[in-house]
Amino acid sequence: MTANTTTDSTTRVEDLYPSRITQQPEFLERRDPVVYGDAQNGPLNAEQLEQFDRDGFLLLPGFYNDQQVALCHQELDRLRDSAETRQRPEAIVEPNGSALRSLFAVHRPEISTRFSQVASDKRILEMVMQVLGSEVYMHQSRVNLKPGFAGKEFFWHSDFETWHVEDGLPRMRTVSCSLLLDHNYEFNAPLMLLPGSHRKFVTCIGQAPEKHYQTSLKQQKYGVPDPESLTQLVKEHGITQATGPAGSLLLFDCNALHGSNGNITPFPRSNLFFVYNSIWNQLAKPFCNHQPRPEFIASREFSNTMKPREFI
Amino acid sequence: MTANTTTDSTTRVEDLYPSRITQQPEFLERRDPVVYGDAQNGPLNAEQLEQFDRDGFLLLPGFYNDQQVALCHQELDRLRDSAETRQRPEAIVEPNGSALRSLFAVHRPEISTRFSQVASDKRILEMVMQVLGSEVYMHQSRVNLKPGFAGKEFFWHSDFETWHVEDGLPRMRTVSCSLLLDHNYEFNAPLMLLPGSHRKFVTCIGQAPEKHYQTSLKQQKYGVPDPESLTQLVKEHGITQATGPAGSLLLFDCNALHGSNGNITPFPRSNLFFVYNSIWNQLAKPFCNHQPRPEFIASREFSNTMKPREFI
Repeated sequence: MTANTTTDSTTRVEDLYPSRITQQPEFLERRDPVVYGDAQNGPLNAEQLEQFDRDGFLLLPGFYNDQQVALCHQELDRLRDSAETRQRPEAIVEPNGSALRSLFAVHRPEISTRFSQVASDKRILEMVMQVLGSEVYMHQSRVNLKPGFAGKEFFWHSDFETWHVEDGLPRMRTVSCSLLLDHNYEFNAPLMLLPGSHRKFVTCIGQAPEKHYQTSLKQQKYGVPDPESLTQLVKEHGITQATGPAGSLLLFDCNALHGSNGNITPFPRSNLFFVYNSIWNQLAKPFCNHQPRPEFIASREFSNTMKPREFI
Repeated sequence: MTANTTTDSTTRVEDLYPSRITQQPEFLERRDPVVYGDAQNGPLNAEQLEQFDRDGFLLLPGFYNDQQVALCHQELDRLRDSAETRQRPEAIVEPNGSALRSLFAVHRPEISTRFSQVASDKRILEMVMQVLGSEVYMHQSRVNLKPGFAGKEFFWHSDFETWHVEDGLPRMRTVSCSLLLDHNYEFNAPLMLLPGSHRKFVTCIGQAPEKHYQTSLKQQKYGVPDPESLTQLVKEHGITQATGPAGSLLLFDCNALHGSNGNITPFPRSNLFFVYNSIWNQLAKPFCNHQPRPEFIASREFSNTMKPREFI
């Protein structure tokens, strides 16, 4: 594939990571690099790149300062209190009411000027471009409002598995950034990762129904590894909790297995979530027989490359 | 009350801790000591007693050795695999099937010889009698089988609140022991406690329906503090996780607020749970208008005082 090649949702690409096909789970070897760039071309040093390569993630505690976090919280409050926002197709509301749970496409200025600035923050973007060794566009973005007391669990999964099968993301050349907007303690259900799990692709069993995305953000049922595979992976890799103060940034590979427990503590766990994809890894036809998911879940605006800007 | 006074489920006793009555939560002062004995009369030293008095709990990591834990696991397996056991009234099975979730009255030799020995283990019993400054009987006992992946959360509560309102436990002179049969990590939903919370009694709102106990072990809905009170308490006391290897023992006061998150990790969290009550704190008429709960939930066999024995 070259920069001149463009794909659309009918372009067929070889399926290097078949999933949800057989009835037996398999561990496939990763066929793609994890780090595409080097320490000479970006803000991450050799040790940090090595860590990302080895673990599949990198946690940067206190990446944003208190003032930057406060600006994000202001914007969070504005979006949560906006009845108009809750009615957007990009909004996911709580099952038991109308409270906003997630809002997609927050990198778009028409949805949030502030969050579009964070999405293009050169301090973030230059790290991502360094890891992926190319220019990037936004595959998906969202803000997750996770209040205390009622936070539900999110079962173990590889984001790549879903993006590959349901969206046609061909290769592993995609990085997620989670900006923690609240302190993540050990006990308010921080993200858990299996370090090193990104080097294997664990195939999943069963087929997701059409429009799966409308429920999958509330409860994950498809595209999750089976308990036996997970037990083996946890034994092999252990579990790391991504704890840290508000403003911490977690960079993680698209194929890193992660999940989170429920949260009965009063401490919320809101975060901004940006998924950057290499321009050399454009979406093709989904590797299942479904219609492509909406643009705000899996963008096909490949030419909208992100331009690094100063945040504040 | 003296040793010669006996109560039954019709004996009316003054309600020093009224709960589930008003529509506004209140913080009442504790009217009872926490530690009734002293360092001269038992295995706990002054520092440990002080810690229990201050925090409302005491964690003893590795209290049982591997061999003792293994014997408990053998017994756990036997009970889980017994169809006869699952059909006992003392058995609580999973909502979605017939798997054993909890089994009550495991201190009774006719239910479990092994666990009856643990319940009378002098190393445990002498600590409990020291804290309570008297002989004790078993108010409630159970084994909780908590498998990995599917562990549900258990919302914050004071055991005393329920035992007082629903069982007629008059005063705070009751100690719980949780013997961890699996390693409790930070991430497999260990018990969380609010250290110091046992010094206040937080009244709850709303009345539980009759036979509440049949569902309360599956999901706690009544007898839990309101979110505002909890937020204030957590701010004041912080959260401590009771983590430790299998065989660790947690002693905690009946009024210590505690709860646990859900658990998506493969790591189970089984435990033995014994509630020892002072013989000077016999159950009276429940402080609500319900019938007394069954004997295996709230024993009235006050004369069955526990006699310390060697375990193994």
